[in-house]
Amino acid sequence: MEAAPVWSVDPRSGKRRERVGVEASAGEVGVVVRAAWEARGSLVDRGVRAGFLRGAAALLEASGDVLVEVADAETALGGVRLRGELARTCYQLRAFADVVEEGSFLGVIIDHPDAAATPPVPDLRRFKVPLGVVAVYAASNFPFAFSVAGGDTASALAAGCPVVVKAHPDHPGLSERVAAVLRRAAVERGLPAGVVGLVHGFEAGVALVGHPLVAAAGFTGSVRGGRALFDAAAARPVPIPFHGELGSLNPVVVTQAAASERAEEIGAGLAGSMTLGVGQFCVKPGLVLVPASPEGDRLVEALAGGVARAAAGVLLDGRMRDNFVAGVAERAALAGVECPVVPGGEGERGVRAGFLTVPAGRLTEPGAHDVLLEECFGPVTVVARYGDPAEVDAVLARLPGNLTATVHLSAGESEGQGRAGELLARLTPLAGRVLVNGWPTGVAVAPAQHHGGPYPATTSTSTSVGATAIERWLRPVTYQHTPHALLPPELRDDNPLGLPRRVNGRLQH
Amino acid sequence: MEAAPVWSVDPRSGKRRERVGVEASAGEVGVVVRAAWEARGSLVDRGVRAGFLRGAAALLEASGDVLVEVADAETALGGVRLRGELARTCYQLRAFADVVEEGSFLGVIIDHPDAAATPPVPDLRRFKVPLGVVAVYAASNFPFAFSVAGGDTASALAAGCPVVVKAHPDHPGLSERVAAVLRRAAVERGLPAGVVGLVHGFEAGVALVGHPLVAAAGFTGSVRGGRALFDAAAARPVPIPFHGELGSLNPVVVTQAAASERAEEIGAGLAGSMTLGVGQFCVKPGLVLVPASPEGDRLVEALAGGVARAAAGVLLDGRMRDNFVAGVAERAALAGVECPVVPGGEGERGVRAGFLTVPAGRLTEPGAHDVLLEECFGPVTVVARYGDPAEVDAVLARLPGNLTATVHLSAGESEGQGRAGELLARLTPLAGRVLVNGWPTGVAVAPAQHHGGPYPATTSTSTSVGATAIERWLRPVTYQHTPHALLPPELRDDNPLGLPRRVNGRLQH
Repeated sequence: MEAAPVWSVDPRSGKRRERVGVEASAGEVGVVVRAAWEARGSLVDRGVRAGFLRGAAALLEASGDVLVEVADAETALGGVRLRGELARTCYQLRAFADVVEEGSFLGVIIDHPDAAATPPVPDLRRFKVPLGVVAVYAASNFPFAFSVAGGDTASALAAGCPVVVKAHPDHPGLSERVAAVLRRAAVERGLPAGVVGLVHGFEAGVALVGHPLVAAAGFTGSVRGGRALFDAAAARPVPIPFHGELGSLNPVVVTQAAASERAEEIGAGLAGSMTLGVGQFCVKPGLVLVPASPEGDRLVEALAGGVARAAAGVLLDGRMRDNFVAGVAERAALAGVECPVVPGGEGERGVRAGFLTVPAGRLTEPGAHDVLLEECFGPVTVVARYGDPAEVDAVLARLPGNLTATVHLSAGESEGQGRAGELLARLTPLAGRVLVNGWPTGVAVAPAQHHGGPYPATTSTSTSVGATAIERWLRPVTYQHTPHALLPPELRDDNPLGLPRRVNGRLQH
Repeated sequence: MEAAPVWSVDPRSGKRRERVGVEASAGEVGVVVRAAWEARGSLVDRGVRAGFLRGAAALLEASGDVLVEVADAETALGGVRLRGELARTCYQLRAFADVVEEGSFLGVIIDHPDAAATPPVPDLRRFKVPLGVVAVYAASNFPFAFSVAGGDTASALAAGCPVVVKAHPDHPGLSERVAAVLRRAAVERGLPAGVVGLVHGFEAGVALVGHPLVAAAGFTGSVRGGRALFDAAAARPVPIPFHGELGSLNPVVVTQAAASERAEEIGAGLAGSMTLGVGQFCVKPGLVLVPASPEGDRLVEALAGGVARAAAGVLLDGRMRDNFVAGVAERAALAGVECPVVPGGEGERGVRAGFLTVPAGRLTEPGAHDVLLEECFGPVTVVARYGDPAEVDAVLARLPGNLTATVHLSAGESEGQGRAGELLARLTPLAGRVLVNGWPTGVAVAPAQHHGGPYPATTSTSTSVGATAIERWLRPVTYQHTPHALLPPELRDDNPLGLPRRVNGRLQH
């Protein structure tokens, strides 16, 4: 059987741009995985890893013009946005180089012998070692930051794990070019090129998660695709960790007091957040609880004004456009739903932003309106109008897990008045990131970031953004009663690498 | 349908001791889970949690005599061992109280705004919150330390999670009594008794892992049972983390130089370790690679002497005895296998310790001898005699994941001579704990402990013993741009609780 070709497609025209390669067979995936596995020893040295990550960032920047051009042709996300995303991606690679050098992620704990303990404690020295080859499933909506050189790859390489990326079919040409840059950076540092592999094709992705030498996987994408791969990872003879980011509604609550104070500002801010990147962010606010009051009406008017002014856009591929148009139509047809600005298709390939309103009471019990509590990818949001704060609580109680949950409060509530504290306590169990008086779009790369949340936001308790994303690719090992001459330098008493450590219960750094 | 009664059975006689209660229906499991869920708010305060754990330890000690008596009657493990295990259990509860108070486990990270970052960093503050109700599946072989008041329960309560324990059927009477002590400790501290629930029965265990309000599970037991529950946890509409400790062979390598130096000492040490607790430890050495040399012969002779002197014992239940007798017979019947001391049944209920020898070459390729690479629960080990160090490498390369891996080295090798470093490098990927010149039995409760390992040792990268076991029951949450008045005290700039934290990238404590 001949291998299926992989085409690069321009979403603005629907036309094929170039033939990138062919889909990988299971056997070909095995070759790529084995090359990565054989390269694992080259990543043992932390200095080499940090240098590799920094070198990759520099080479990506040097190739920025052509990479952004290819990315724009394949995704229609626009040069400005893509240039910013590339900068973010390079910042992230360097941030993980810093994490590698700082060394806290190794989790070094040393206990000297203690005969008085019950049972007695021998000499124990723990640190974390890389899991092995990591499979990375690239996302469509961030062709740089959540794709071949994105956070999963950067954090896995930082942890010392070789990576095999399953390219997203919406930007295969860019994927090949970015992978080539990473391999060049590897070779320039004396690492085997196999330390970063790339495969195309749906079946290749299935083969990848099932390969015996793959030790863990990272994924960003849909609930359906992510859950299928999660299930496959769990069903292996030897199950592996699967860190998937699947879907999120990102609820927002606006209090009556906040609406009274700044209805127009909140409405305009929401319009900006939900239309950003043509609504193709995993943290797009998808459900907004707004009071059914004159102040709430003003908020909705401001939202309508902002959304109506948003330019039509092109989604990442035709299938997403079809899903958006169908998803919006299904929701708009529900009883009680109105469309102050009608979202839908625009011309042959475009989409226009819009939003729906619904009485919050429609969402407090299971029924046909439950589809409004599911993510709809693209520039649309659902505004649920509540009469009583109890309706807010009832809707929140029905929500699945989310990446983010947001509340807009008045100045007084921000000082703790009213039920601000209670609202925060209700939002915390729903999400991995809780925002006050802000918008969830824009995920900072920082040590304190957490980009994850209860299922289906993520399939594990981990984050895919920020310094602690490295923890996903490590496991602890403890050495007991091991002579100093044989200990890794990280675990020696003289701490030759100057690592932050916990020794006999005390933090040292 | 009438509920099935739960009987306490004396393994020494096979006779029923008392009727403990009845197996829980799915509906009854739901009642217990909901009570635990409703008690979750009572565990928010860390001081309350620490006090509860210390109070539980004191009450367990106060009831020590009766608890040890019941435990011995149900497990035949003997008063001395059980008294030590109870002490370990109380030590562990207090150690987790210390962990709760110290506060590092909260993983507090604070980033102040940084407009210069790409993208800009807003005010971000992260810490960890409890997952919710934890299901604990108790082990048979540690009726105190890995059962109702064991490490899973202690670490979950320390994390702020209520617990529902599925009692092990080998000690239901003790389970009820220990649960009553925990509940008394809870009530004495003003907590609802529902903070610790207990259910009996196989079907109850299945219902427990599937209950929507159960947020995570801990398990210690067999590969078969653990894998079935792991699969059920992964197949839920909302999958949950399942931290299972399933099985481990615990390989040991003895170098020729080590055998030359101390053949008798190693043989005697191995005899002690493999017969300890009638071989019913998850870290029992189950495969020992010994040189086929005169020095290796002396080691085997010393082992034979020690094992032959070991008293016959009673396993935890009749099914385990049947499995042991059948497992030993299956292994002994293989070509090339010899039995210097024959293990098997002793009298009507007992078992006697023994060991098998086999040429290591039989284990280097897949075949009928693969059963020798599987755990056999009870007082038996397999000694594989190798002629060439390459045979050691070939056998190690075929092993599944383990809790421990051990190497015995000579004094010179311990200084780094020969291939000591290479052996350690080969053992590290195989296990969560690597020992040099020691025996894996005896798992210290200490910050640097790691009791876990690649599958099937554990189903996750976590530990079930030691301070970091608490990490299993937590997930991070980040607050973005949240007014100080609404922040939890853990995240406020003035650090009113004096927690160790990372602020703007710097560790502070």
